[in-house]
Amino acid sequence: MSDLPAAVHITEEGSREGFQIEKGPIATARKIELIDALSQTGLDRIQIVSFVNPKNVPGMADADAVVDGIAPRPGVAYTALWLNEKGFARAMQHANRLTNTGTIQLCASEKFSIRNQNRTAAQQLAGQHAIVEMYKAAGVPVERGSIMAAFGCNFEGDIPVSRVVALTQQILDVAAEHGVTLNYITLADTMAWATPLAIKRTVGAVRDRWPDVDVALHLHDTRGLAIADAYAGLEMGVTRFDAAVAGLGGCPFAGHAGAAGNVCTEDLVFLCEEMGIATGIDLDALIDCAKLAEDIVGHPLPGAVMKGGTLKRFRAA
Amino acid sequence: MSDLPAAVHITEEGSREGFQIEKGPIATARKIELIDALSQTGLDRIQIVSFVNPKNVPGMADADAVVDGIAPRPGVAYTALWLNEKGFARAMQHANRLTNTGTIQLCASEKFSIRNQNRTAAQQLAGQHAIVEMYKAAGVPVERGSIMAAFGCNFEGDIPVSRVVALTQQILDVAAEHGVTLNYITLADTMAWATPLAIKRTVGAVRDRWPDVDVALHLHDTRGLAIADAYAGLEMGVTRFDAAVAGLGGCPFAGHAGAAGNVCTEDLVFLCEEMGIATGIDLDALIDCAKLAEDIVGHPLPGAVMKGGTLKRFRAA
Repeated sequence: MSDLPAAVHITEEGSREGFQIEKGPIATARKIELIDALSQTGLDRIQIVSFVNPKNVPGMADADAVVDGIAPRPGVAYTALWLNEKGFARAMQHANRLTNTGTIQLCASEKFSIRNQNRTAAQQLAGQHAIVEMYKAAGVPVERGSIMAAFGCNFEGDIPVSRVVALTQQILDVAAEHGVTLNYITLADTMAWATPLAIKRTVGAVRDRWPDVDVALHLHDTRGLAIADAYAGLEMGVTRFDAAVAGLGGCPFAGHAGAAGNVCTEDLVFLCEEMGIATGIDLDALIDCAKLAEDIVGHPLPGAVMKGGTLKRFRAA
Repeated sequence: MSDLPAAVHITEEGSREGFQIEKGPIATARKIELIDALSQTGLDRIQIVSFVNPKNVPGMADADAVVDGIAPRPGVAYTALWLNEKGFARAMQHANRLTNTGTIQLCASEKFSIRNQNRTAAQQLAGQHAIVEMYKAAGVPVERGSIMAAFGCNFEGDIPVSRVVALTQQILDVAAEHGVTLNYITLADTMAWATPLAIKRTVGAVRDRWPDVDVALHLHDTRGLAIADAYAGLEMGVTRFDAAVAGLGGCPFAGHAGAAGNVCTEDLVFLCEEMGIATGIDLDALIDCAKLAEDIVGHPLPGAVMKGGTLKRFRAA
């Protein structure tokens, strides 16, 4: 039929991405309502909260209560995001409910690293050794490498493909040195600089050098290209994507400038299923979640299929 | 660099698509304001009005006044849409301002034709002969073939690729019989059923059979795939696209279900220019038009780059 993959795996990040960025307070019960609904759709990995300083991210002040409040569904991995040891310690307090796994993370933009973490690229790399040891000491598997700003950076500009290849090598070296085997490496278009052509070139360069390394894509839709970027990834055989239900994660409407959320989950599922790529996700149930998300945040969200509808009713008629 | 085309040509349809569908009345002067702004961006073909029954489409009741009111810019072709002889006659009354060209148009869905025009596929085809003669008698060049619902239909379901190939043959036969040479054939995803894979298969089938026939794509974004479909078209070497500034043409927000507009012009320009494909369009000026369009319709429009911004300021910094 085509050279596209037979199946993909989507990690849902909408509840974390979305509720983190919303300006108004969202009731803990409503966050839990969305997460529990998402867990009924066939999604088997859902990032639900971030353990960060509530002074910086007030929307995540109730992260512990959210984790405690969900009705865990067997077979679904609920994950959290943390940015430092303190956040990791909080996540580990929920080890009975959360699937905590470690990431070796580098950033393709040194300027971004310096600005956000006050770390040079060398310091950033050096720090990963301690982080891997921290995970090992805690008995947490280190499964993933991740390269932030892999396609461009608002502070540094375009990122050459060669740098992504070099950072991939560094990540694999850190993993080897500490005896951990990564399942995949995520290329994150953190600031929405990617194009489908850049996706093909960058994924292709990593694939050429390490044919056995699985690549995942974390795409943002700030400039409307996320779904085209995802398609380019599919054409390159990428089978792992992060996504956000309804496109949660940004405030692109009502005149709010700035970053948009991840590629919209239900639009991505629609794209895949219509091209014969299995997602394991019930699209109708997911669209109901997208509508629920819109109700919870109280303003329109950018997802398209949730408004335009699927083709099912027309095919059935 | 890549196998993508070096340049593309975009026909702007936003003012016609958008103002036709808006529920509230839009002042004639504001329509003219947008069209005149669009003419300053480098766009050289702008569909500005449709000559249709004002009882059916009240938003186009002022079509004559719009045509009379614009400040025609040399080098820009202003076009109109019509659905019958009466509409064509109205367009011809503006032959000094409008670039009127003929289209041989078929529909891939017989059910859609029957429903909308009360014509079978055979009647539809037969009617094209009279239409071409009408154009010839009026001294209007017949430049284009067009296949509506080429990728699927809400009333008939999926459209097989073989039908698009057969209809292309019929269009070329009509053209040959009347001694006209078409510049290109538009495949229209009228009801937003296309996927990038379907674009590749359908364009590929037409291209295989008629390597010299230029294919254009008319894409709708109802299910969020228009930009990915456009990218698939670019990968197939398609260099002609219809598009709508700001994604004008639908009411996907504020709970309005239903069809969305054409692929968003400035998002398509961003996609192309970022991949090294020349459009001849000033993206910043076009984004200003998109913001103007949003101001005119008075509600958020779906375009992404108009909200997220281009990468220019970051590269300049």
